[in-house]
Amino acid sequence: MSVGNVDFPEMKKISGIRLGTSNAGIKQTERDDILVVQMDEGTTCAGVFTQNAFCAAPVHIAKKHLENSPRWLLINSGNANAGTGQQGMQDGMSCCDALAAIVTGNKQQVLPFSTGVIGETLPVDKVELALPKAVNNLQEDNWTNAAHAIMTTDTFAKAASIEIDIEGETVTLTGISKGAGMIQPNMATMLGFVATDAKISQSLLQHCLSVAAEQSFNRITVDGDTSTNDACILMASGQSAAPEIIENTESYTLFAKAVMTICKRLAELIVRDGEGATKLMRIVVEQARDNDEAVLVAKTIAHSPLVKTAFFASDPNWGRILAAVGRAGVINIDLDKIEIYLDDVCIVKNGGRAESYKEENGQKVMNQQEILIRVVLARGDAVQEVLTCDLSYDYVRINAEYRT
Amino acid sequence: MSVGNVDFPEMKKISGIRLGTSNAGIKQTERDDILVVQMDEGTTCAGVFTQNAFCAAPVHIAKKHLENSPRWLLINSGNANAGTGQQGMQDGMSCCDALAAIVTGNKQQVLPFSTGVIGETLPVDKVELALPKAVNNLQEDNWTNAAHAIMTTDTFAKAASIEIDIEGETVTLTGISKGAGMIQPNMATMLGFVATDAKISQSLLQHCLSVAAEQSFNRITVDGDTSTNDACILMASGQSAAPEIIENTESYTLFAKAVMTICKRLAELIVRDGEGATKLMRIVVEQARDNDEAVLVAKTIAHSPLVKTAFFASDPNWGRILAAVGRAGVINIDLDKIEIYLDDVCIVKNGGRAESYKEENGQKVMNQQEILIRVVLARGDAVQEVLTCDLSYDYVRINAEYRT
Repeated sequence: MSVGNVDFPEMKKISGIRLGTSNAGIKQTERDDILVVQMDEGTTCAGVFTQNAFCAAPVHIAKKHLENSPRWLLINSGNANAGTGQQGMQDGMSCCDALAAIVTGNKQQVLPFSTGVIGETLPVDKVELALPKAVNNLQEDNWTNAAHAIMTTDTFAKAASIEIDIEGETVTLTGISKGAGMIQPNMATMLGFVATDAKISQSLLQHCLSVAAEQSFNRITVDGDTSTNDACILMASGQSAAPEIIENTESYTLFAKAVMTICKRLAELIVRDGEGATKLMRIVVEQARDNDEAVLVAKTIAHSPLVKTAFFASDPNWGRILAAVGRAGVINIDLDKIEIYLDDVCIVKNGGRAESYKEENGQKVMNQQEILIRVVLARGDAVQEVLTCDLSYDYVRINAEYRT
Repeated sequence: MSVGNVDFPEMKKISGIRLGTSNAGIKQTERDDILVVQMDEGTTCAGVFTQNAFCAAPVHIAKKHLENSPRWLLINSGNANAGTGQQGMQDGMSCCDALAAIVTGNKQQVLPFSTGVIGETLPVDKVELALPKAVNNLQEDNWTNAAHAIMTTDTFAKAASIEIDIEGETVTLTGISKGAGMIQPNMATMLGFVATDAKISQSLLQHCLSVAAEQSFNRITVDGDTSTNDACILMASGQSAAPEIIENTESYTLFAKAVMTICKRLAELIVRDGEGATKLMRIVVEQARDNDEAVLVAKTIAHSPLVKTAFFASDPNWGRILAAVGRAGVINIDLDKIEIYLDDVCIVKNGGRAESYKEENGQKVMNQQEILIRVVLARGDAVQEVLTCDLSYDYVRINAEYRT
């Protein structure tokens, strides 16, 4: 079930980036499950990857190949090629090999990505058989098929596309993501692929993506679990008419903001597709001593099963939120100074229920599909935001029944 | 629903410790909800309390009064007197006052404890009215009523009682606990009261309790939330015929072991009554570099909603366990060296599914009500154990419907 607006947008193509899909029948046969992305020569490419120590074979390979000016992405859904040991590394390389052979390219310039079930061997033969069709399909105007090909338990395809003006010329950014439940190890989960026609150096592009990912994909949580396969790639073909984007310029600021916007939207769509989610909760922690502290408090609230079940029940249970703040581990926190708001309704003040608070006002906010939880720590100036969803019967059902 | 053996044991009385209960009708009227415990003069008393920065009014008072050679405990269920600000402190003190007046004692020697709903004012008048009957009831042979009077959402009363031999004389330890869902802030949750007739100094008793609590109450988790009201008290009346227990003696070792045993049992009973629990999972992490690392890994597994839902589904989903180990934050962990066992069945070896593993063997273990998850890190000698339960539909139901 999706929460709120998840409409598929109009997808602007990116000059120099072509996408092709096909059906390898890895887990099921109705939907394409292979995506090949071709980048023209001169495209710069940046990546961010899972922090889980148990990271999947394709992540190891993609990280390494990212240094070789990659020209191709090869993504399969239905199988994560994770927990597959040495065999998994061989299988990942075999797929790169197979694609390189068809396109007469260099396998070191192929970045592989896999998403799906953990612990099962990747059916390399199926991938190989499906590759020629995907390569034949390569075209710039193929983002919609691409967004569908990378889905696993996603209930809708996730995409965003924006245009900005850089010195009088149009620069386009278009991206897709997948994931339903950030970050669900068994479905090995979040992937994001964003392309732009901006001209920008690899190192600056990497900086831009790292900053954006920290504030977007690293600020969403469904269940606090971290996948073995998470990755986000940002490709810049340099084929727009706009001049190169250089550090410390207004153009860079504009571009970085656009990357942030697209990453935030792609991340938010994942929470809106959170497993069993019925509500989107935007947790903003204000007046923290520093960003780490703000994120710590926000994530403690976001991960609390008690808070999440209360939101599922539309119960304005301020005690659970305050208790989560209390156990977050902030040194010398003074709970008497904290204020907590549901949208504009103050629910906590002076260490307890705000005197002005009326249950009916809290209830009104709780009945909404999207809720802002604002925690004011009164310790400093830092502000951070984390997105999450509620914990419902369906979360348990989906995750209990997944393999059976 | 309870998991496994939760039989109420025969409760040996403790000479010098008397208990009385009565019904104040704080939340409901069918069951006693007030417990008064009287300690004879000369009793030493130790306590451990919640680490949550947001701790309830009675916890503040009890911590302070613990320094005054306490003679009385006053416990109410049905209302946690938490999130009640300055009013809560006054109300807690009023209850101490009221008890002191009836027994012509010193209110500074009364330790108050409250458990129940957060954020509602304690009905002091109801407590006051119920106190005389509880005081009239005071008797050594009243542990069973006491165990029932402190229950909230508990589905059964929790108790343990053992006898040990100290230099030819019998020393008895008897205790009760409450909690269903460690640690559920809204029901403000875990309480434990243990008494013994051993003779032991306050400082040594405190050391003994601190060590035991760390390995028992601090090693259980249902949902990772930490209550605002958690406390455990250990009272030693000194009225057994055994000589005083002194540091660094065989007697101390025996006594400390008995305290550990009773605390572990009282803690385990809480997990067996975990909200919605259908399975008890004993997570043992071996060959860790140190205890902190072992606890970190064990708790990361124990808190993972994905692991917990898989156990609810009796799904031997080793990928979720391995992924939890991977994201625990252990520096330089080598996942290829890790082994994971379900009881005696090796499920993970060399970074993936063990070659010897057969799904039917894992399934057989998963169908049990009690399961040992053993993680061998191959990094050192430290071993630690954490107890938890699965995450079921009923957990969501209980916590979504609690206030509504």
